[in-house]
Amino acid sequence: MRFELTKELIELLRTKIAEQDLAWIHENVLELHHAEVAEILDTLTNDEAKYIYFLVDEDTQADILMELDEEIRDRFLASLSTKEIADQLENLDSDDAADILGDLTEEKIREVISQMEDDEAAEDIVDLLNYDDDTAGGLMQKEFFQAHVTWPVNRAIIELRKQAEDVEKVYNIFVVDEQDRLLGVLSLKRLLFANAKTKIADIYQSKKIISVKASDSAEVVAMVMEKYDLVSVPVVDYQNKLVGRITLDDVVDYIKEEADKDFQMATGITDNVDSNASTWRISRSRLPWLVIAMVGGTIGAKVISNFEGSITKIPAMAFFIPLITAMGGNVGVQSSAIVVQSLARGDKDLGRILPKLWREAQVGLMNGIFLASLIFGVASVFENSELGVVVSVSLFTVILFAAIFGTLFPLILNRYKIDPALAIGPFVTTLNDIIGLFIYFSIGLLIYGS
Amino acid sequence: MRFELTKELIELLRTKIAEQDLAWIHENVLELHHAEVAEILDTLTNDEAKYIYFLVDEDTQADILMELDEEIRDRFLASLSTKEIADQLENLDSDDAADILGDLTEEKIREVISQMEDDEAAEDIVDLLNYDDDTAGGLMQKEFFQAHVTWPVNRAIIELRKQAEDVEKVYNIFVVDEQDRLLGVLSLKRLLFANAKTKIADIYQSKKIISVKASDSAEVVAMVMEKYDLVSVPVVDYQNKLVGRITLDDVVDYIKEEADKDFQMATGITDNVDSNASTWRISRSRLPWLVIAMVGGTIGAKVISNFEGSITKIPAMAFFIPLITAMGGNVGVQSSAIVVQSLARGDKDLGRILPKLWREAQVGLMNGIFLASLIFGVASVFENSELGVVVSVSLFTVILFAAIFGTLFPLILNRYKIDPALAIGPFVTTLNDIIGLFIYFSIGLLIYGS
Repeated sequence: MRFELTKELIELLRTKIAEQDLAWIHENVLELHHAEVAEILDTLTNDEAKYIYFLVDEDTQADILMELDEEIRDRFLASLSTKEIADQLENLDSDDAADILGDLTEEKIREVISQMEDDEAAEDIVDLLNYDDDTAGGLMQKEFFQAHVTWPVNRAIIELRKQAEDVEKVYNIFVVDEQDRLLGVLSLKRLLFANAKTKIADIYQSKKIISVKASDSAEVVAMVMEKYDLVSVPVVDYQNKLVGRITLDDVVDYIKEEADKDFQMATGITDNVDSNASTWRISRSRLPWLVIAMVGGTIGAKVISNFEGSITKIPAMAFFIPLITAMGGNVGVQSSAIVVQSLARGDKDLGRILPKLWREAQVGLMNGIFLASLIFGVASVFENSELGVVVSVSLFTVILFAAIFGTLFPLILNRYKIDPALAIGPFVTTLNDIIGLFIYFSIGLLIYGS
Repeated sequence: MRFELTKELIELLRTKIAEQDLAWIHENVLELHHAEVAEILDTLTNDEAKYIYFLVDEDTQADILMELDEEIRDRFLASLSTKEIADQLENLDSDDAADILGDLTEEKIREVISQMEDDEAAEDIVDLLNYDDDTAGGLMQKEFFQAHVTWPVNRAIIELRKQAEDVEKVYNIFVVDEQDRLLGVLSLKRLLFANAKTKIADIYQSKKIISVKASDSAEVVAMVMEKYDLVSVPVVDYQNKLVGRITLDDVVDYIKEEADKDFQMATGITDNVDSNASTWRISRSRLPWLVIAMVGGTIGAKVISNFEGSITKIPAMAFFIPLITAMGGNVGVQSSAIVVQSLARGDKDLGRILPKLWREAQVGLMNGIFLASLIFGVASVFENSELGVVVSVSLFTVILFAAIFGTLFPLILNRYKIDPALAIGPFVTTLNDIIGLFIYFSIGLLIYGS
């Protein structure tokens, strides 16, 4: 049976907390997996959550803390004294501790660090705080297994046992020389089956070792781990000294955030804004896109006003304005989205992209012919065949233009190192609107005469 | 130094292949990491790639095969005999072998299977072919470490050594009873440090064991692995018998695909269509969205034609049609994108969603007031303050309506088990266009009089 959080459980728990019914709480809550306990704490008041939290052992506390919803965790930490925060940090992996500490003020960071009892842990955390969040250094943790290349297997096992307490998840042992320079990797499986007297030097993998530099960007880390199918990757400094490791689960979070970013760009929400930000801040984060659209709309108004004569003469011309702009926008977005996706997948050589442009033009041609024929019928019935010709010829031209422009625009942005996803947002639909209107009314003028 | 693929390397390699310069190829290509070799093969002709491929040892062949671009791999496999394919499959992990086999015709599958020499491997693959691609059964592999709960540590190590050849990446040992029912998990780390005589029963973790059912959807697997921070998860059948395991790297691919899907929905490209599909198929996959937009545009035309009198009287009303529709569309998309994102993150209780609706309405109100004031100025200068009033009051109403509608619509779709991402696409912008036009012209009629 998989755990499911119910309103009933929460209600019951609340009364049991009020009654301080420890036996019930132990059996029904503390026995659960830490991710489930965290899920429960997310729904309680801070005082209730605190009560439960301090009932569990220190290791589980650390696990629960990292699983809490970010808002809830911030609220929880804000209610602790610096000494209490320091105690919590000592149980965390160094990367998690640094992340939590990084959100506090300079002054509070100093206070918390000075209250930590484990000097080595404190030092690791301070060291990690020096790295930018979106670099390998910002993602890595200081806990990992390392073995000297000169050790025999039995010595390695003894030494690793000492390191074991700190390292929660082990996938690999990093092999280093006397100067802590990374030489290679040894799988736990290999070590398990090796003879006690065998030297590490004889069994570790020294070729084709993949590592990242602490200064590498998170993007590079994600690409390297994906490309080489790694569950953990060693991090080295400029002298190739081993300084940390990054595990796949941390990178998964990063990959998801990146995908979210493209989605947000495409939908016009530049949202690094917290979900608990003020209405004013959310509103401000969306306004830029809307102002772009409004400026576009105003230019569009100017374009139409230049053809005021046409509208006075043939008011039916106005009927199909929304159709022309909507179609141009949709076709443009479809084409740019395809290009953005293939750029995100790493298609960088133009050799592969040029055929795509040609393909998009063909698709535009095909869809343009089909839809233009359809709208010719509609507009002819609606008004007369003369308007049918104006609308269908315009629609065809607009579709073809939008397909080509929608393909080229993200490519151009990319060439100038601007995020191509920007092309899918309001910016391009707006541009397509303006050009579409111009095409529509020009063709109208051509056919109807001035 | 990280490997970078250059045109020079490829050119040189091609001449070396033509000259059959094995020494050079060995030193400069075969010594590379298998992911890099795959990257090189992706750029060669099929004959060249085949030549290199069969120079490496069998295990590396398997690794390279799985790293090839899908199109390139299909082309490569199509050029092999069924016997050659069978040989390749025997070196692959069972899940990869099943994936590759699943793409072939029924007849070819039978032929390939009958040519496989390793009966056990063949059986595993046949078994995996029974599961749907997007279930736990479709994601799992048959290679994993398992130990009987009654074994002592030294026996376990001997038995695991036998299993070791098949299992490439080991994170955990699954502990089972005599009937192969899953009892718990033992970390490799724990086994490494345990005494030879200790019983598995005394050291394995039996509580809070997370597993998935073979019939669970891939979505559930991804959510479970993320929630519980797992690198590998055991898969069981209805009797809790251990049947396979899923590793995080396979799930990462799934997570990325899901994120891509939302992006595609939002941009109107229902693209399960292969990138090497015919122009006609691509064109067809986009048409539905465009037809929706066109039907919307036609209804919009009908709405405007009902107000033909207004346009004849005040042609300037037509100028601001694109502005009204564009703003409604953009605001609607912003609001629905926020909702779709929070639904994707698993916010399911309405308790959290209602405040969001209220928040969106507030944001709409704020942006509406700001943008309406701005456009009042623009439209007044453009034409006169009467038109300024019409445009700004309409814009405000449209923005507020679009914000609320954009928030509600994906929620309603979700309630009826329809993918809410559908709400962001052309469907909603189109609906917003129509309603926006109606609001605009109605307010025009109200202010100007008929």
